[in-house]
Amino acid sequence: MSAFEVGNKLVEMCRAGDFRGALEAVYAEDIVSVEAQDLSGEGREVRGLDAVRGKTEQWESSNEVHSCEVDGPYPHDDRFTVHFKLDVTPNSGPMAGQRFQMQEVGLYTVKDGKVAREEFFYHMG
Amino acid sequence: MSAFEVGNKLVEMCRAGDFRGALEAVYAEDIVSVEAQDLSGEGREVRGLDAVRGKTEQWESSNEVHSCEVDGPYPHDDRFTVHFKLDVTPNSGPMAGQRFQMQEVGLYTVKDGKVAREEFFYHMG
Repeated sequence: MSAFEVGNKLVEMCRAGDFRGALEAVYAEDIVSVEAQDLSGEGREVRGLDAVRGKTEQWESSNEVHSCEVDGPYPHDDRFTVHFKLDVTPNSGPMAGQRFQMQEVGLYTVKDGKVAREEFFYHMG
Repeated sequence: MSAFEVGNKLVEMCRAGDFRGALEAVYAEDIVSVEAQDLSGEGREVRGLDAVRGKTEQWESSNEVHSCEVDGPYPHDDRFTVHFKLDVTPNSGPMAGQRFQMQEVGLYTVKDGKVAREEFFYHMG
């Protein structure tokens, strides 16, 4: 699959709210996932599909998602980007109970038809 | 300036419709600009501020811009992204007179406080 085809699959599943299914469908076993900021206090980078599954489950269990708009994918060679608009309320941590909106862009690099690297672009606080 | 500061300046000027002013304010002399597709028929990549000025003037003179929404900047280390929603009517070329809407993401790499590389992500046709 091309980067655009992988991106379309990812966007389709994210729009359906199936973030965990998206991992299984289009992520490589050796995926590297890099945040713009160390929001969790556990570092910005995680490596491997198991670690990304854990990060996704942690995020889903600690946030109530009111809405998630997903625009894209926008391809460029073996990469694509996706624009996310999130409206969430964290249920733990320093922001617990405080509903907020944020936007971010994901930059995805595709190798052998799978997402091998994802980098999130945003500015928080 | 950090990538986020450079991005804020770029976004502010693009929102004001001052694309040429943005080049003078935040672009490096040796800027490299890469399109996702060869829409002009003259190649995907241009190098140097003079060439990017020419590309910008060419684009402005060949399109009527009805609106341009600019979201961002979204930073990540020495890079930032910007999300554009365009509503334009080309006045020349194969699409002349056909109003259309498109979205794209720009990925900008900052060196020494200036944009040294820009890459546009989109899918046309």
